[in-house]
Amino acid sequence: MTDDAKPGLSRRGLFGLAGAGVVGAGIGFGVDRVLTPEASTSGAAGVYPFFGENQAGIVTPAQDRLHFASFDVSDISRNELQELLEDWSYAANRMTSGLGAGEFGPADGPYDSPPDDTGEALDLPPAGLTITFGFGPGLFDERFGLGGKRPEALIDLPHFPGDALIDGLVGGDLCIQACSDDPQIAVHAIRNLSRIAFGRAKLRWSQLGFGRTSSTTRAQVTPRNLFGFKDGTANLRAEDTNVGKEIWAQNGDGPAWMTGGSYLVSRKIRMTIETWDRTSLREQERVIGRNKGEGAPLSGGTEFTEPDFAVTGRADAPLIDETAHVRLAHPETNSGATMLRRGYNFVDGNDDLGRLNAGLFFICFQRDPRTQFVPVQLSLARNDAMNEYVRHVGSGIFAVPPGATSDRPIGAGLFG
Amino acid sequence: MTDDAKPGLSRRGLFGLAGAGVVGAGIGFGVDRVLTPEASTSGAAGVYPFFGENQAGIVTPAQDRLHFASFDVSDISRNELQELLEDWSYAANRMTSGLGAGEFGPADGPYDSPPDDTGEALDLPPAGLTITFGFGPGLFDERFGLGGKRPEALIDLPHFPGDALIDGLVGGDLCIQACSDDPQIAVHAIRNLSRIAFGRAKLRWSQLGFGRTSSTTRAQVTPRNLFGFKDGTANLRAEDTNVGKEIWAQNGDGPAWMTGGSYLVSRKIRMTIETWDRTSLREQERVIGRNKGEGAPLSGGTEFTEPDFAVTGRADAPLIDETAHVRLAHPETNSGATMLRRGYNFVDGNDDLGRLNAGLFFICFQRDPRTQFVPVQLSLARNDAMNEYVRHVGSGIFAVPPGATSDRPIGAGLFG
Ligand code: HEM
Ligand code: HEM
Repeated sequence: MTDDAKPGLSRRGLFGLAGAGVVGAGIGFGVDRVLTPEASTSGAAGVYPFFGENQAGIVTPAQDRLHFASFDVSDISRNELQELLEDWSYAANRMTSGLGAGEFGPADGPYDSPPDDTGEALDLPPAGLTITFGFGPGLFDERFGLGGKRPEALIDLPHFPGDALIDGLVGGDLCIQACSDDPQIAVHAIRNLSRIAFGRAKLRWSQLGFGRTSSTTRAQVTPRNLFGFKDGTANLRAEDTNVGKEIWAQNGDGPAWMTGGSYLVSRKIRMTIETWDRTSLREQERVIGRNKGEGAPLSGGTEFTEPDFAVTGRADAPLIDETAHVRLAHPETNSGATMLRRGYNFVDGNDDLGRLNAGLFFICFQRDPRTQFVPVQLSLARNDAMNEYVRHVGSGIFAVPPGATSDRPIGAGLFG
Repeated sequence: MTDDAKPGLSRRGLFGLAGAGVVGAGIGFGVDRVLTPEASTSGAAGVYPFFGENQAGIVTPAQDRLHFASFDVSDISRNELQELLEDWSYAANRMTSGLGAGEFGPADGPYDSPPDDTGEALDLPPAGLTITFGFGPGLFDERFGLGGKRPEALIDLPHFPGDALIDGLVGGDLCIQACSDDPQIAVHAIRNLSRIAFGRAKLRWSQLGFGRTSSTTRAQVTPRNLFGFKDGTANLRAEDTNVGKEIWAQNGDGPAWMTGGSYLVSRKIRMTIETWDRTSLREQERVIGRNKGEGAPLSGGTEFTEPDFAVTGRADAPLIDETAHVRLAHPETNSGATMLRRGYNFVDGNDDLGRLNAGLFFICFQRDPRTQFVPVQLSLARNDAMNEYVRHVGSGIFAVPPGATSDRPIGAGLFG
């Protein structure tokens, strides 16, 4: 226990992704107290275990709120990078279990040190907190000797027609997606993980999302995005029989360390709300290809009726326009490509012209972005009628490794 | 019904703050359907009536989420300003009742016009939505002939020591505070009111708050701010016998049109989180004057024990430091001054140095800022130990008129 007072909260050596499973107690522990995964799989409502074959926060029922952060790794060694991932895993396992980020809560002293948890979540339950880690392409450059481990699927995203990316909102060596039904819990997670990373990795960009725009299970009601349309209707869901093979990297897909992982693509998409709001209802529905009230495809039926792209109406025009978003995004148009969308609505105040700086922080997970996100986004970027009302300003791609266990922190496979 | 299709949603002439009280139905109405205040005082859970002697959103139990907006009025006439306030009142009464902003919801057509509600709240209950309007000093300049109506209490705030105000985050002619337990509902309200104001008033600045930092009733649990401390413990509350005379402008205080109104001061206060997080627990508690775990004053007792500023400890030093925030903010130190605090935690992403752009969006209500906010803030600005960890970057002061009724929109008294 030599490094107790260290801001890094290190439990290296004893590794000890422990202390979890005991929701609410700030217990100490020793080498012999490393918990088994079972012990941390608390059945308490609103607790998703951090340990597991896959990381949580992907097929987990989409929580209401998001804090997403991208980091640049500082000038540190390969060993220090590995330690950072250990420290993050330790703290993430604690926080998702409802504990503070470190063993000494703000109320537990010691009084002459900074508390190893910042305190704003002290009285709150984890509210379904999941913390999902990812590795950007930059991590595999010359700095850490990881070049040989880079999965081919972790491409540098191509430039898409219309991209208006802002440098400070793109990329990153590492990412953390924190989702919870309580925004204070999601913010607390990112804030403490940033604090733990001090001197080792630094926030590059971060994004709060106030409302989910997808359902990832059949039990969830479809939410609405800031265009006012239901979003997530045709999403891949936890119950779908093909979900596993669409989102988890399989044995033989690429490097072994990614088996059971996934690839995350994020796009910060700003909506020109004011223009949209002055557009007729007819045009809005044409752009999406579904009606606004119920979310039914314009080819007929109710929300969950499959769209029929062949049906025509007056003057033989298709009921679902040739440039409608759902047509161009649909698997039928993209050689069967699908993905699990898990995005959030955002509002970041307003710009100098008095327009709300609002939109959709798009997140999707998939087994291989080369055959999933990229072709779909190409199809949209070229022809989507929605392009008149959106601007892609941020972008990220991250390899999301498989889940941690009590003796294997996130990304352990990278350093094997 | 000549102006049905007008984006301004005008119901002038028939004024018609109607349609409310019928939660969920998008009914039409005529001159004869102007509802009485009673009819709109729906008892449905999560509905606070918009009509009333005072505006809602002040003593109302502090909701979890905030969207606050400040507007500059465009180059319009006095009449057009009055019409804007009518249109806003009409829409606010509808939205707080759980209806769309206008009579024709996005699902109700007409198809060739823009919907008169943007739709993202379509399937959601109002979740305790309150919409509170205020008038900044600028409204009383030469433009609208309202100079003679300016209350003396609506001062231009003085410069406080240490102020680091950013021009774009200060002031405004009009403000709207939208609070709800669902952020999508608060955002929907501000977005639709901005849309309705198109061409007449334009967003100057706006702020999302994700977590309340106050309790305004005894039934509420004290929340925590981003310093990790309980905030709101010693707040004025709805149940306090003196609350009325501390927050509502009384007959004879100033112009008659403000009787039953209040004064809102907002301060966007950025916290230097990273410095705070590296400060010892002892220093953090010294700065606040309360302990971090429970929120008890350092002079002893539990959360709701009154602080005793005279008690001393070792070397005769006071247990609550001379520069502790609670000492300097306490009524005892400020000739009895109190106020109703109703602020929110915010995180607006991060700055270029990778520091979270986070803090407290402070809001308070009072009968007269000259004897309430100003002396307290002066005492804090001069000596508060907390100043090392905060920076005031935004500021606003607004006269919050009394409540609307079915035939008197917000601010009607201004034009009498
Ligand atoms: C601001 C940007 C966007 C908005 C407002 C938006 C909105 C929508 C809406 C309303 C639907 C129909 C309901 C549903 O099935 O979920 C939809 C479907 C879909 N969107 Fe988007 N979307 C956006 C960006 C994207 C992007 C960037 C992608 C991927 C590159 C994408 C992929 C999809 C897919 C795959 C579907 C399902 C299509 C189907 O199978 O029917 N969307 N989107
Ligand atoms: C980031 C800025 C601020 C933080 C973090 C903060 C935090 C706190 C905390 C933790 C307390 C003790 C718990 C409670 O009674 O609520 C408190 C009390 C108080 N604060 Fe602040 N505060 C801030 C700014 C302000 C400002 C700008 C004012 C007014 C000018 C103010 C006025 C008060 C008052 C009146 C009390 C109650 C004091 C008493 O009667 O014991 N605070 N604040």
